[in-house]
Amino acid sequence: MGNADIGLIGLGTMGQALALNIAEKGFDIAVFNRTTAVTQDFAAEAGDLAARITPTESLEDLIAALKTPRMILLMVPAGKVVDQQIEALLPLLSPDDLLIDAGNSDFHDTNRRNAELPVQFLGIGVSGGEEGARHGPSIMGGGSRANWNRAAPILTAIAADYQGQPCADWMGEAGAGHFVKTVHNGIEYADMQLIAEVYGVMRDGLGMDAAAIAQVFERWNDGALKSYLVEITAKVAAAEDSATGGPVLDVIADIAGQKGTGRWTAIEAQHLGAPIPVIDAAVTARNISALKDRRTDLQEIFGPGPQPIAGQPDMDLLEQALTCGKILCYDQGFGMIAAASRDFGWSLNSAAIARVWRAGCIIRSAMLDDMAGALEDQPGRPLMAAPFFVDWLTKTQDALRRVVSLAVLHGIAVPAHSAALAYFDAMRTERGTANMLQGQRDYFGRHGFVRLDDGSEDQHGPWAG
Amino acid sequence: MGNADIGLIGLGTMGQALALNIAEKGFDIAVFNRTTAVTQDFAAEAGDLAARITPTESLEDLIAALKTPRMILLMVPAGKVVDQQIEALLPLLSPDDLLIDAGNSDFHDTNRRNAELPVQFLGIGVSGGEEGARHGPSIMGGGSRANWNRAAPILTAIAADYQGQPCADWMGEAGAGHFVKTVHNGIEYADMQLIAEVYGVMRDGLGMDAAAIAQVFERWNDGALKSYLVEITAKVAAAEDSATGGPVLDVIADIAGQKGTGRWTAIEAQHLGAPIPVIDAAVTARNISALKDRRTDLQEIFGPGPQPIAGQPDMDLLEQALTCGKILCYDQGFGMIAAASRDFGWSLNSAAIARVWRAGCIIRSAMLDDMAGALEDQPGRPLMAAPFFVDWLTKTQDALRRVVSLAVLHGIAVPAHSAALAYFDAMRTERGTANMLQGQRDYFGRHGFVRLDDGSEDQHGPWAG
Repeated sequence: MGNADIGLIGLGTMGQALALNIAEKGFDIAVFNRTTAVTQDFAAEAGDLAARITPTESLEDLIAALKTPRMILLMVPAGKVVDQQIEALLPLLSPDDLLIDAGNSDFHDTNRRNAELPVQFLGIGVSGGEEGARHGPSIMGGGSRANWNRAAPILTAIAADYQGQPCADWMGEAGAGHFVKTVHNGIEYADMQLIAEVYGVMRDGLGMDAAAIAQVFERWNDGALKSYLVEITAKVAAAEDSATGGPVLDVIADIAGQKGTGRWTAIEAQHLGAPIPVIDAAVTARNISALKDRRTDLQEIFGPGPQPIAGQPDMDLLEQALTCGKILCYDQGFGMIAAASRDFGWSLNSAAIARVWRAGCIIRSAMLDDMAGALEDQPGRPLMAAPFFVDWLTKTQDALRRVVSLAVLHGIAVPAHSAALAYFDAMRTERGTANMLQGQRDYFGRHGFVRLDDGSEDQHGPWAG
Repeated sequence: MGNADIGLIGLGTMGQALALNIAEKGFDIAVFNRTTAVTQDFAAEAGDLAARITPTESLEDLIAALKTPRMILLMVPAGKVVDQQIEALLPLLSPDDLLIDAGNSDFHDTNRRNAELPVQFLGIGVSGGEEGARHGPSIMGGGSRANWNRAAPILTAIAADYQGQPCADWMGEAGAGHFVKTVHNGIEYADMQLIAEVYGVMRDGLGMDAAAIAQVFERWNDGALKSYLVEITAKVAAAEDSATGGPVLDVIADIAGQKGTGRWTAIEAQHLGAPIPVIDAAVTARNISALKDRRTDLQEIFGPGPQPIAGQPDMDLLEQALTCGKILCYDQGFGMIAAASRDFGWSLNSAAIARVWRAGCIIRSAMLDDMAGALEDQPGRPLMAAPFFVDWLTKTQDALRRVVSLAVLHGIAVPAHSAALAYFDAMRTERGTANMLQGQRDYFGRHGFVRLDDGSEDQHGPWAG
């Protein structure tokens, strides 16, 4: 039996950052990487922290270096590699040993591993990129509460701090942690797309250059939109390209990559029947961005889309529209979480989730603290029905209407803002238009409908002969 | 060995209709249903067609009644029931016998069955509801070309006829037929949602009653929008409720059901990375419609959404907007089919698909004949880039902009129209706004970007230090 408090497998960028973070917080950690040279280099460059880090060259050595019962963090690529790594470890482990998958795993895989493995298991979502992993990520834990409690001293110590509270918490059983991380990433896509659309209105509609745009986002970062993403948007817009001397933004190709977690969110929401149209629009926007050749061909056919918007640019209007869109997007995200909680029997705590997202992760923002309060205040109530956000939506919805209207009249694509507004208008309307759908469905397929007046079910129209 | 040309298992509504259709076209058919009474009643009520129908009371009897090599149509509920039915049949079949799954199967299941079964197999999508099944459905076949050719004499005979051409064709290998049927259903959701939104503008924005709305749709059915769905929309809107004496439409609850195939389309499009935002919006609208209690609560909080639109109602504007939205929706559907064709190696023929949809199925319309022509004309070219549809989009896009703008300013939810327009504006824009997304992604995750000027990949901004 060794002395290390925890082991870590996988010294990629994120693994190294987490290992240093753990060592820095005073824990002894044994590390292992498939390629031994990586392990040696890592240990050699760990500086002051090297004393707390034990490099190992085989899984057997790693196991031998750990206190029992053991705790091992896996930081290997999601998917088959995780299963292979676990399979290689199992013969060396005791039933009490705890494996913690800290990768970007599909929560269905985490559900399966949690149910099947003959050892203890946690699946934790870690957000914040390399910087977060090194100095304080947001950590969303899933598995048994007892296993979370075992790992919590280390996980809360390395997590981001929000006014004295660690941004690490137990989300629920089994894959709940990775599920919450998935929704986080879907919201991240949507937050980014909303910002990109406002950027498009400024650039293409208002003819603003990158420097002017940077200043606006910088100013917004002092207001309701204060957030990491708005902060870095200002920095990205302000950055100069060393080759051209112009804005970097102007030389970056408009083809967005994706690693798939936004897509997972969209797919899972469909399975849950939970409406998340702003996230859908954001994923779709990335898919469209990839079709660059087709876009080029179609611009040649139809002529350029965006037209200049006449009149005085009104930055307050844009700020309010973005704020409104953001609130509606989060209402959808938390709605999806509530739907999953019901369907999967997880008792997810929306307020706790909002608290964990307040620092460390990519979507961290001032507004998440208000959201945590609103969700705590009356659990089960939709975010958009909380008085604080009712006020915000009431005072910003007109701006969202005006911005979407201006954009659509001027050929500027604002799919996420449009989806947010349509969601608001559909969700606030008691009497929607689905009666037409039900009439059509009964006409062609005898699907039946419910009568509004007496609630009777399986009714048919006179066309049903 | 018997004399029947084909067997049919499953005498539900669709199975009975198909069996009568087959008998009417001059084929001898043996039928079997788990509950024998259903089989007996069916045969007893077949009238003139009874001579061509052999009722059987066991699978053994069914098999004995068929010519060899045998051909058996399965019309049982999709999912496990299909597998169970096949398992029960296999011991009675020879390798040359052909099973045809005509149910609403998930195409992944059809792929699997096609690969695994020790007998011949076809998966066919059948659209048109009971009426279509009885008098001429649209049939989308998947499996080997040789097996399609074996079944084609019967399937083309019973299919809908479009100016002398049968609306039944081979779509491609394995699950291709059921895949095309899935996309058909996604488009069906979208077509219906676009219509429901225009209905909402008329009802809530323009204060029109159901009778006036019926007249407009009836008129539109003589123009570019001529289609089964517009035709029945007029009939649904015109229908009177015997209990109230008022329009049926006004007593139908606004909660739309769904059997899941629209959702499948949305999910599969995400896997393919194919943008189908109008279909996404339609599925989401049904999900929102189900949240009636929440909508009621939110209307109480925010007040009623839709506001009257001042000025003269302009029906031509609405007709053009709906036409524009419809074309863009079909462009997305055919784009998804092209993506699947590439990813699955299916060589799907978009023009042949459009031809099969011209009659028999729910989305049948005059415009599908124009689409077939446009897609035939230059395979691989997006529908919206075909000159015929370039003209239509050019002359109707302004109406779509004005209708979306009016709706969003007046609190009327038009998510599918908004999504269609945002898609158009994004797809026709060579220089989009995803450069901002890539800048952000590189800032927080070092994901790298492509430079526009020299095409160099994996570039980083100056923030990458």
